[in-house]
Amino acid sequence: MASEKPTIGFVGLGAMGFGMATNLISLGYKVRGYDVWAPTLERFKQAGGEVATSLANSAAGNAYFVCMVASAPQVQSALFDDEKAVAKALPQGAILILCSTVPATYAQSVRDQLIAIGRNDIHFIDAPVSGGAKRAADGTLSIMAGASDEALEKGKFLLAEMSDANKLYLVPGGVGAGSNMKMVHQVLAAIHILAASEAMGFAAQLGLDAKEVREAIVASEAWSWMHENRSPRMLEEDYFPGVSALTIILKDVGIITATARHHNFPVPLCTTAEQTYLSGLIRGFGPNDDAGMVRMYYSQPISNVTPKSPESSAAGIKLVLALLTNIHICAAAEAVSFAKFLNVDMGQFYELVNAAAGGSEMFKVRGAEMIEGAKNGTAGKRTLDEAAKELSAVVQQARDLHCPLHLGNEALNLLLFAKRRGWGELADTNIEKVYEAL
Amino acid sequence: MASEKPTIGFVGLGAMGFGMATNLISLGYKVRGYDVWAPTLERFKQAGGEVATSLANSAAGNAYFVCMVASAPQVQSALFDDEKAVAKALPQGAILILCSTVPATYAQSVRDQLIAIGRNDIHFIDAPVSGGAKRAADGTLSIMAGASDEALEKGKFLLAEMSDANKLYLVPGGVGAGSNMKMVHQVLAAIHILAASEAMGFAAQLGLDAKEVREAIVASEAWSWMHENRSPRMLEEDYFPGVSALTIILKDVGIITATARHHNFPVPLCTTAEQTYLSGLIRGFGPNDDAGMVRMYYSQPISNVTPKSPESSAAGIKLVLALLTNIHICAAAEAVSFAKFLNVDMGQFYELVNAAAGGSEMFKVRGAEMIEGAKNGTAGKRTLDEAAKELSAVVQQARDLHCPLHLGNEALNLLLFAKRRGWGELADTNIEKVYEAL
Repeated sequence: MASEKPTIGFVGLGAMGFGMATNLISLGYKVRGYDVWAPTLERFKQAGGEVATSLANSAAGNAYFVCMVASAPQVQSALFDDEKAVAKALPQGAILILCSTVPATYAQSVRDQLIAIGRNDIHFIDAPVSGGAKRAADGTLSIMAGASDEALEKGKFLLAEMSDANKLYLVPGGVGAGSNMKMVHQVLAAIHILAASEAMGFAAQLGLDAKEVREAIVASEAWSWMHENRSPRMLEEDYFPGVSALTIILKDVGIITATARHHNFPVPLCTTAEQTYLSGLIRGFGPNDDAGMVRMYYSQPISNVTPKSPESSAAGIKLVLALLTNIHICAAAEAVSFAKFLNVDMGQFYELVNAAAGGSEMFKVRGAEMIEGAKNGTAGKRTLDEAAKELSAVVQQARDLHCPLHLGNEALNLLLFAKRRGWGELADTNIEKVYEAL
Repeated sequence: MASEKPTIGFVGLGAMGFGMATNLISLGYKVRGYDVWAPTLERFKQAGGEVATSLANSAAGNAYFVCMVASAPQVQSALFDDEKAVAKALPQGAILILCSTVPATYAQSVRDQLIAIGRNDIHFIDAPVSGGAKRAADGTLSIMAGASDEALEKGKFLLAEMSDANKLYLVPGGVGAGSNMKMVHQVLAAIHILAASEAMGFAAQLGLDAKEVREAIVASEAWSWMHENRSPRMLEEDYFPGVSALTIILKDVGIITATARHHNFPVPLCTTAEQTYLSGLIRGFGPNDDAGMVRMYYSQPISNVTPKSPESSAAGIKLVLALLTNIHICAAAEAVSFAKFLNVDMGQFYELVNAAAGGSEMFKVRGAEMIEGAKNGTAGKRTLDEAAKELSAVVQQARDLHCPLHLGNEALNLLLFAKRRGWGELADTNIEKVYEAL
């Protein structure tokens, strides 16, 4: 019965947090929420939420608490900044669920700080999410949770309320393992988000009808979750503010590249995406939806393009699909190799990606082969030589149109390095070997 | 005596061509010049030039002809487009010197087209130049000339009038060899031009005094010819139009990347520079001086930065120098490895670069070791591990400031790939091995 459900403390009522909190309300929970931005509190109240008067007030007396602020510095401030922060205010034995995307090392430091302030009674769960604002509001997120067995046992029911039945991943390895899993998932997300803009901008430069291109991509092996999700916003220039700000994926990719640097692991597609996102930031695109990155490739609205003849359109669409499939194969290689390097559970990683926002048809097929190590076979498969030849033609066409292809060129460089290693006749999944220590 | 000197036909009186033509006038030659842009013809007349009434008129009766238009399509138009183009109008046995930067394959096609139209009497010299507008006007350019022995014998005196006594390179290999030599030189130019902007933009993000940083760079092992040449224009925002348009280096880097793709040779720093130049083009920077690329890194005038304390300034300058030296080492590796791959005369290449606009202190020292193959030694030398560590700290600092480092990140990825290959303890010159077929 609804009245028996516990009150949930909640901090961070942004695009994701607001959906998560109101979903809990619709499931019969009382949610006492806090945010530093007053207008969202008003909206939260109208949605049936209980507005906390302070951080401490959101936590006091609540045996369950969810933190969904935007970044590690915000988490630090909300949980620990002073006597009135969440960690001190929570009741004895509370369950504290951190859903923000943070570095694994930071999640571990939260655990350590709780101990240091004498709150090792708190059951802390490192549980980043994926899926976007709509799935947050529907309670069908993907959640990657790492914690002690006891904490997971106690908090699992609440994680289940926020996630899809098939998309709650209890990640082995304790606190930090959830964040690590999220991070390697975001390798794909960070690359695919820019790839979606790169493909649609290139399509516009080719003089293609944006809607037709989108439909062709979504129906083909060039499909990615991000492309299907972001491209409608490009068609409508729905960037102000849209749904997912550029600053969010920029923060996430920063976690990836900083961690990769720490391990001396190269993630060239992620760093390329990151530099391009930073260039967007300089242009003032930070608060806009990340789908607005298409403006880095084509200055005018892509829906205003006057399409060419059906014949040249078919040839153009073929180039766009080739650009995307080759980027996605290299993205799969970057994600799989980095996940392996970090000793991530590969079976769980594969399942999770395919059910979450990092999914792509190429990851599903080629990623599986890379993970299984079945990549050396060549019979009946496309070779690295063929991939390089195809992508090289795409890059040349873009160059003739003066269209930058940040990811397309980076992916081609990887393919060319693989060819220099003598692997040209191997199946294209062998691109992953470029990342390996050989 | 001046009156005995031949009249020189000339087409292409842009920033470079105007200087070259008026230098010849000052040396006592009559120059009959042509350009499609009327205002430059008026200026040319005032400088003592003879204005041709048409392309054919610039060529007719002149035993010596110089073509200095901007690109291969313009060369094609000027030399061959119709009955009144230069190739048909030149007198029997004329010397035709092509100074435009074009692909080697295009220079060879000029030779073949001359034969095809029955003008194999013309002595054709493929002779691209380097050095900028000032050296053009002073007659002290670097010139890389490839042609038949007979053509070189006949045209050498005129090449000598346009070049510095020590900077006329007769490149073995006939027509195309000059353009190839120019192309591998431009690998350095294309990277260094963007590196100059990247360094100065990063310095501004660090809150450093732009003039102080420039002086520190020019006096250090982070020196490059391009930085010394371009940075004053950044200090004064002298981009409109400045001296060397973005579209010029964009054309040159396009020749490099298209040729590299043709050979399946990876040139990741050049492609990164190219994509960043294309992004500048989308922002409308094409007609501006390429020094204006600093605006891709810092939106405000860099001279307006309010400098920090002397202590933090010293630390900041150290980071900027580290960024540049590491990019320059990788640029040297990219240029040396591509030149070797193309069987360029390495001794001549080394000498030429150091005397031309592609020079850098790192190329001079590390490039020499890469060319000599003496790169495997480690005693007393900085290792790849140390280079990666240093550059990694720079990249992290830039990331914290939300400053893109397109080349810095690309160079770091190369270093990290080298480490993955197990070469971390080798001298940093071993970065060249990343490009080799191993």
